Amino acid sequence: MDSKNNPTRFEVPGFLAGGIPSGIKKNRGKDLALIYSETPAVTAAVFTQNSVKAAPVLVSMERVERQHLSQAVVVNSGSANACTGSVGLDDARFVARLVARELNIDENLVLVASTGVIGKRLPVDTISSNIPQLVRNSRQDGILSAAEAIMTTDTCPKVVLKKEIIGDKEITICGLAKGAGMIMPKMATMLSFILTDTAIEAETLKKVFCENIGYSFNSITIDGETSTNDMALVLANGRAGNPIISGPSRDLEQFGRLLGEVLVNLARMIVKDGEGATKFVEISVMNARDDRDAREAAFSVANSSLVKTAFFGEDCNWGRIVSAIGSSGANIDPEKINVSFDDVILVRNGVGLGDEAERRANKVLGREEFKVLIDLNCGSGKARVFTTDLSSEYIEINANYRT
Amino acid sequence: MDSKNNPTRFEVPGFLAGGIPSGIKKNRGKDLALIYSETPAVTAAVFTQNSVKAAPVLVSMERVERQHLSQAVVVNSGSANACTGSVGLDDARFVARLVARELNIDENLVLVASTGVIGKRLPVDTISSNIPQLVRNSRQDGILSAAEAIMTTDTCPKVVLKKEIIGDKEITICGLAKGAGMIMPKMATMLSFILTDTAIEAETLKKVFCENIGYSFNSITIDGETSTNDMALVLANGRAGNPIISGPSRDLEQFGRLLGEVLVNLARMIVKDGEGATKFVEISVMNARDDRDAREAAFSVANSSLVKTAFFGEDCNWGRIVSAIGSSGANIDPEKINVSFDDVILVRNGVGLGDEAERRANKVLGREEFKVLIDLNCGSGKARVFTTDLSSEYIEINANYRT
Repeated sequence: MDSKNNPTRFEVPGFLAGGIPSGIKKNRGKDLALIYSETPAVTAAVFTQNSVKAAPVLVSMERVERQHLSQAVVVNSGSANACTGSVGLDDARFVARLVARELNIDENLVLVASTGVIGKRLPVDTISSNIPQLVRNSRQDGILSAAEAIMTTDTCPKVVLKKEIIGDKEITICGLAKGAGMIMPKMATMLSFILTDTAIEAETLKKVFCENIGYSFNSITIDGETSTNDMALVLANGRAGNPIISGPSRDLEQFGRLLGEVLVNLARMIVKDGEGATKFVEISVMNARDDRDAREAAFSVANSSLVKTAFFGEDCNWGRIVSAIGSSGANIDPEKINVSFDDVILVRNGVGLGDEAERRANKVLGREEFKVLIDLNCGSGKARVFTTDLSSEYIEINANYRT
Repeated sequence: MDSKNNPTRFEVPGFLAGGIPSGIKKNRGKDLALIYSETPAVTAAVFTQNSVKAAPVLVSMERVERQHLSQAVVVNSGSANACTGSVGLDDARFVARLVARELNIDENLVLVASTGVIGKRLPVDTISSNIPQLVRNSRQDGILSAAEAIMTTDTCPKVVLKKEIIGDKEITICGLAKGAGMIMPKMATMLSFILTDTAIEAETLKKVFCENIGYSFNSITIDGETSTNDMALVLANGRAGNPIISGPSRDLEQFGRLLGEVLVNLARMIVKDGEGATKFVEISVMNARDDRDAREAAFSVANSSLVKTAFFGEDCNWGRIVSAIGSSGANIDPEKINVSFDDVILVRNGVGLGDEAERRANKVLGREEFKVLIDLNCGSGKARVFTTDLSSEYIEINANYRT
């Protein structure tokens, strides 16, 4: 109960977790993580929409779709096990089998995830010799350590925990994630694991998870890239003892809101820690013809290199925003567009409001976090996307990622 | 005739051109250009597909579509005259009217183009006081000077000239262009003016021009942006005296090939001079399900920030290429993808070929110009796109564009 007032105690009843350095990463950092539920947990998942899917994605997809149940997730950073052919699939299953043996559970209840460089074979010998230690090291308070072990170019681990009373029982939802680059919609575009002790039926969990992914991980962008390895999992072990949530109800609404808060917080953390990011920007589009158009316009602005470099330079070049809206494919009337930065209106009916407005807007751009509000005045569609600026540091990180 | 052996003499019979500094650009560089045909010229044009179109685009579109004939083009750099409302349209027409008066021609035969910062009103007083000088300064050998005056962040003027005999007559095609940033398909995405003395009928000119735009200006990308001001014009004044080209014929084939060479050369020059570019890369996709899929895959690779930063870092991170193909939307089989850098094959059937292949590929990446060949092995569609790397200098240029 008191962990509610102590946000650094990341624990979920019935879950153990941990992370260790196993030697995959050249810098000897933590690179192997385990999440383990003492009892099999109802599981839902969302996977990358990239046609090129990494081996661990294919293996985990198959297992989750077959039984909607899992008990452990083993994750490595430093190697993506993507574009590795049938050998890669064998490697992913082999690692899962070793973990299952060590935990003495069914190997089909073990899911796998990987992140890192594409195209290198997973160092299975290194990993397998470290699995006994990985299992021994897993503890109730090991979630933060697991979050550290899944990082690549992330500068900090990302963990969010929320507690609330549902059906007279305290339930906990804790999410951990990694992001940094290759962050775009069309699904999770990173690794994220949500652990909860809530009792909830599989189809209901899947539905509420997918809905909330749309407003969180599918509404962020750093560089418009969609990775081969993206995966978001939710494991619900029912340990809280609440009346099982199944189908529409007030409990489901409450659980959905809480899950949404965890996911949106993780999404914000991922964008804030985007490669080279110095700004956190919310792009809000309203009164589009429909939600789809709103989303297209918002993402076109959020992904525009010219808009993002102007954010980095703190230059209120609103013309680039209007141009990005115009080339988005959304159905718009150029003469009805209004644009504001926080509370400063800059463009009305498609025309700039002059130097004084720009001076005020430049002050907003000096902030680390601000909103761009775009009113298209042609319907009631809306969308909200989180993005960053594009800085010289992004180039440096990505020009030398593998060296 | 001897200008064939002297590529620096950029002249087309019957055309005068010139460029002067008029005070629009803060740095006092040339910023006002005129192209003038001694007789009205058959004209075809392609305009930006951005829904937000600058005033000069709207004015020129209307005039070209009405009569397929023009006699002069006045172009300014330093101000885009975009997002300027009805005042912007009046300004564009006013400038055209002044030029028409000075040249003593019908104002509807004057086209206008602008490039520069969006959202500022065109400095019409500055421009109008300089028009008499602009007209006086126009000469047969003034094309290079006009090419200088339309530059923004370009580091060099871009002019290409070709001569050939068609129907017993020597014909000349000369193109001038500006590019640098905001370079993506969906049309010209820059300013380009093609001048020729060929005698050709309007519909035929339009058709052959549009076809060749597809393989040139619509097959390049620097940053995936589509500007509000893009325009490509071709003016044919018939001065060569060749039998008029009308409909399919060997003369049309020859003219089309020559026009294509001029456009592709200009397109290559634009990409090579892309903002901050240090590499020129041709992305060639073959054996896609169809040409459309090939184009989607090629552009997804050519626009990927991660692929482009890896080019800049000379890191043969082929996994990013395979990932970009996978997220392109093209229908592919991941296990059939082959990837080569020039003559070095790196990926076969979706799997990397190992360290020795990567070492050889890294040498290719050290070149200033190379090809990425992608074989999808699932059809006969093909596409070829020119792109650049993404360097720290791109960020610097665009973070501080207006300051």
